[in-house]
Amino acid sequence: MAQQHLEPTDPLSGHVGPATGDALAGYLRSQATEFLRALRQHRDSGGAAAGAEDPVDAARALRRSVRRISSSLHTFRPVLDPDWSESLRPELAWLSGTLGMEHAYESRLERLLLALHRLSGAVFPAQPRSVGTTPAPAPDRGNLTVGAAKAGALLDRQLTLARTRAHSTALQALGSSRFHAVADHIAVLASEVPLTATAGTTDLRPMALAAQERLEDAVTALPLVAAGNPYNAEALVHGLSPDPSPHPQDAPWHQVRLLLRLHRYAREVLTSGVDVRLLTAGQCLDRHRDASEAASAAAAAARTPRIAPATAYALGVLHADQRHEVEAARFAFQQCWQKQAVST
Amino acid sequence: MAQQHLEPTDPLSGHVGPATGDALAGYLRSQATEFLRALRQHRDSGGAAAGAEDPVDAARALRRSVRRISSSLHTFRPVLDPDWSESLRPELAWLSGTLGMEHAYESRLERLLLALHRLSGAVFPAQPRSVGTTPAPAPDRGNLTVGAAKAGALLDRQLTLARTRAHSTALQALGSSRFHAVADHIAVLASEVPLTATAGTTDLRPMALAAQERLEDAVTALPLVAAGNPYNAEALVHGLSPDPSPHPQDAPWHQVRLLLRLHRYAREVLTSGVDVRLLTAGQCLDRHRDASEAASAAAAAARTPRIAPATAYALGVLHADQRHEVEAARFAFQQCWQKQAVST
Repeated sequence: MAQQHLEPTDPLSGHVGPATGDALAGYLRSQATEFLRALRQHRDSGGAAAGAEDPVDAARALRRSVRRISSSLHTFRPVLDPDWSESLRPELAWLSGTLGMEHAYESRLERLLLALHRLSGAVFPAQPRSVGTTPAPAPDRGNLTVGAAKAGALLDRQLTLARTRAHSTALQALGSSRFHAVADHIAVLASEVPLTATAGTTDLRPMALAAQERLEDAVTALPLVAAGNPYNAEALVHGLSPDPSPHPQDAPWHQVRLLLRLHRYAREVLTSGVDVRLLTAGQCLDRHRDASEAASAAAAAARTPRIAPATAYALGVLHADQRHEVEAARFAFQQCWQKQAVST
Repeated sequence: MAQQHLEPTDPLSGHVGPATGDALAGYLRSQATEFLRALRQHRDSGGAAAGAEDPVDAARALRRSVRRISSSLHTFRPVLDPDWSESLRPELAWLSGTLGMEHAYESRLERLLLALHRLSGAVFPAQPRSVGTTPAPAPDRGNLTVGAAKAGALLDRQLTLARTRAHSTALQALGSSRFHAVADHIAVLASEVPLTATAGTTDLRPMALAAQERLEDAVTALPLVAAGNPYNAEALVHGLSPDPSPHPQDAPWHQVRLLLRLHRYAREVLTSGVDVRLLTAGQCLDRHRDASEAASAAAAAARTPRIAPATAYALGVLHADQRHEVEAARFAFQQCWQKQAVST
């Protein structure tokens, strides 16, 4: 199963032997070029220019290339200059984390407001908003109970504040000397990849295979039998736990999400084909992560002092709803992974 | 499928032709005898004598026979004296409803307290209590958050009060002249069943078949495709609805539960075999009804004035948890019913 995924599959590439450091150099150069293009786009759009959708797209493109470069540095470490890659990786992790926060808060709020409306039996069109533009119209609360409306307003206040802070932090980061140093490194990477002397003749496949095996081992350790049994009620087991961080059960799934991404990006270096099932499995784990964090945000909002009981009740329903989303995402991942195991 | 269920299957009965009014008379006589035995047992145990488990068992046996007599009067109406059966049926419904309330409140409280402990990550041994005996020990709240403990105490207070009232009502009912009239009717039934003149040669199977068809039609009208799709999030769609009775979606399932019971009891008249799959399907619908009512009780408790936000939050989580139990029970019913349809 492992090997067949790692052969080059693009008949147009003319690439018949095993992929070596040259394939990695090509991949890194193109990702670095993507990064520089997104950075230019971001600067041209003025960061947060009124009415521009571009900075959001540009920030997404920046994160996208940073993730891929960072992953490749990790998976294909043996063929890269160790000093260079070891110094660059933490900087890329910092950048990726800093740039991702604003979007995370925004989509978390959107997910929670959608859920509140769904739970109220109302259909609520999603209203993505961009920071720095005119305020979005207030969501229609006509169909909500007082509790649901107040819970929505509280979450809106808390997550919008967090998002605004994340936006400022990201803008500061993009203007910092630390960022300029990273950007300079990536600019060099666009033309010259610091490979080791033997990289040109080193087969990349064992490294990619190791990434795949790390993923498979981690998946094997997941409680997939329980997850494949619908309505197992596992995800809400600590829904009312006095423990302030009650969901260690989510951690192995988050870990698999990261390992799956490493595997997927390693495949991109070696083959040009897209594995739709890997994408689907990754989407299940993204949903798992998003629901897990949304559930935590609802629980955190419920700890706000002096809220009304009706608000707290709505937040309790919302928390449980998102924990069931967590359980549903695990079920979907199990179904997807099982199909994958059978068909390959 | 229908006919094969309705043939007598007990080789010991020696009954080779189709079942007629005589089979019904035998069934009704034995149920009436059961009723009288349970009533005697109930009186001997002093109704609510200290330390006796008997009144609970006796009340259950009373309800059990009342349900079966009432069902038979309905399904096999054409072979029974119409005046007699039409006057007795509402009395049996009153009796069954009155006797069932105490048990319903007791098991609802038990279900909700178990769920609160499960949601707190604690394992909580069920503590069934009998009314009128010494107070049960307070459940261990060591592992609960303040909110969960307060929610549990509030539910305990409200449902214990309701249960105590239901107990008094049932005791009053058992001492009423209305009850004595019903008991006299049933005492007569134990020896003499008021059949119509032609009942002895009337085939009961078309009547039983009609009961089965009413069940099958009602099941066909259920949203079974959605129910068979795990994590469809249907049951919580009105979890925060401002509508005070937000769960009309439960009604068709409750109706199927009643029709399934009618079908099962009609089969008891005709065959001595037990259909395990019918029992299982019925248990799924019992679970559906219990979870639906427990969810309503949690929502009602959350409307108590002046509760703490932490209490309301815990009740919100609990409500959502029980609505997911509703969804899980529908899924289980769908799976059970599908197997039934395939295998017969």
